[in-house]
Amino acid sequence: MRLSMNRIVETRSDLDGVFRNTPLFECEPLGASLRAQILLKVEILNPVRCFKGRGTEAVLADLGREGRYKSTVCASAGNLGQALAYSSRSHGIPSMVVASSSAVRMKIDRIRALDAEVLLVDGDIEEAREVAREYAAEHHSYLVEDSLDINTCEGAASIGLELAEAGQPLDVVLIALGGGAMATGVGYVVKQRMPGTEVICVQPAGAPAMTLSWRSGKPVHTESFDTIADGVAGRYSIPEVLDDLLETADDCLLVEESSIIRGMQLLYEFAGLVVEPSAALGIAAVLENRERFAGRRVATIICGGNVMPGDFRRWVLEA
Amino acid sequence: MRLSMNRIVETRSDLDGVFRNTPLFECEPLGASLRAQILLKVEILNPVRCFKGRGTEAVLADLGREGRYKSTVCASAGNLGQALAYSSRSHGIPSMVVASSSAVRMKIDRIRALDAEVLLVDGDIEEAREVAREYAAEHHSYLVEDSLDINTCEGAASIGLELAEAGQPLDVVLIALGGGAMATGVGYVVKQRMPGTEVICVQPAGAPAMTLSWRSGKPVHTESFDTIADGVAGRYSIPEVLDDLLETADDCLLVEESSIIRGMQLLYEFAGLVVEPSAALGIAAVLENRERFAGRRVATIICGGNVMPGDFRRWVLEA
Repeated sequence: MRLSMNRIVETRSDLDGVFRNTPLFECEPLGASLRAQILLKVEILNPVRCFKGRGTEAVLADLGREGRYKSTVCASAGNLGQALAYSSRSHGIPSMVVASSSAVRMKIDRIRALDAEVLLVDGDIEEAREVAREYAAEHHSYLVEDSLDINTCEGAASIGLELAEAGQPLDVVLIALGGGAMATGVGYVVKQRMPGTEVICVQPAGAPAMTLSWRSGKPVHTESFDTIADGVAGRYSIPEVLDDLLETADDCLLVEESSIIRGMQLLYEFAGLVVEPSAALGIAAVLENRERFAGRRVATIICGGNVMPGDFRRWVLEA
Repeated sequence: MRLSMNRIVETRSDLDGVFRNTPLFECEPLGASLRAQILLKVEILNPVRCFKGRGTEAVLADLGREGRYKSTVCASAGNLGQALAYSSRSHGIPSMVVASSSAVRMKIDRIRALDAEVLLVDGDIEEAREVAREYAAEHHSYLVEDSLDINTCEGAASIGLELAEAGQPLDVVLIALGGGAMATGVGYVVKQRMPGTEVICVQPAGAPAMTLSWRSGKPVHTESFDTIADGVAGRYSIPEVLDDLLETADDCLLVEESSIIRGMQLLYEFAGLVVEPSAALGIAAVLENRERFAGRRVATIICGGNVMPGDFRRWVLEA
């Protein structure tokens, strides 16, 4: 287990206030429609419209103290890239984001608007990660590897502190699972501070690498992925992160694309929220497991809102 | 001047945490499109999707201390009603909401879901206010008169404390103007704590009673109103509130319906926010006064998100 409460608590004070103390409230109309009590932890009202700023603020604070690196680089589907661009700009150092040429255009535009350079590569996010590693080595640039970089987990873990400190009894916390930074970070804090609360991670059935790894107890890679939830899509699982996930997750669920879309629709209809697919994974899990969550008090993290208006319209409004 | 900083600071501690410490952040893409720096103070991520809970929490805390009333009543276009229903339920006392039969249906449904009784009257909000007064007298129920009840102003004023404490330099704060609780409450705190910041109130040209009153220095009533911004629509202005507004507002602007709709569109497109028309008044003011706000650092309060999906679709998505 790489995580520790001391580090997580210390890390929190490194985060820009704009990413902290996000809204948490019970959305009764949504709960009524799902026959559960649904609490939403909303991470999309900040300059990068997702939770990733918590991690990159932690990264940049560490870099500032160490002073060894003068630039940053990451591979990203677009959210980590925005966050790294934002935090790097705040700290006055340049950043480079490597992304797939198929990444969501709006995310790439926003990364550029935040003064980062963008390098688009043919191939998917895993190939972008390769290129980012090479770039970092070549330019002596600090490489932020999402979920492997402990700062990204510790930063995300501050969401867990806020959940615990809200003093709300919770039966379950549903956490979107991609590389695992949020799932391990938040899950660890929930397990430490709210030991009676179940930690359930949710991943698209079309991008199941980490869930399959958790279930088998060892890293599983997939040949490809196919999901609209770009923010959590990948083919590989990172062994160090899997070790942490094995200790923190009580369960990992896979959900269908149709449930993700239905989750987005419900979040729009009952909460007025415009979210990207990754942020609807928790609601998708409730939809697919009605019995399991019936009547329970369930929190889910609305982790990102970077969705193109055209995609949102097609998926949510016109379906 | 009915407001005082001591009372406002004391009142804040009466508010349920779910209404406090709302997100405040600069929305750079929106600012770029408007050629200003735009900061959004977002009040729609809570159980009533608007800022009104701040006022009703203050009301109910006072009632709890006094113990003289065993029920509450208000007239409302729907947001105050939701907030009063929520706070009354939290404090274990029944509430009655009087609304126009033409009120937004979703707001009425939500009021009922929050366990309040609803009395629909023919006529507009001003006639609902009359009926609420009669009901209160008859049933010895505590009448919450929006903006006249100092608790509603002091509760809203906590938004001003949060703006001031964020430590962000601001050139202007744009505040939606209806009855005046938010405009006077927030305006007062901004003037006290950030004396260099302009306080500008914004009202629909189709419901201009308070703005005309502020301009002429005495209460002006209008024969009717015609605006989609139901949350700020009224025909009368309250003399006591006008007196406060005369001391706190640096200017009051009227905006056209087309600008309100354009404001809603921009908030959706650049911030992913689904807001009701009243919440777009500040952006509408920037749209109609480009020169005045060019390059300035402008905060606006996103005060409500209770809009019917069908209306939002028609106004924002299909326009």
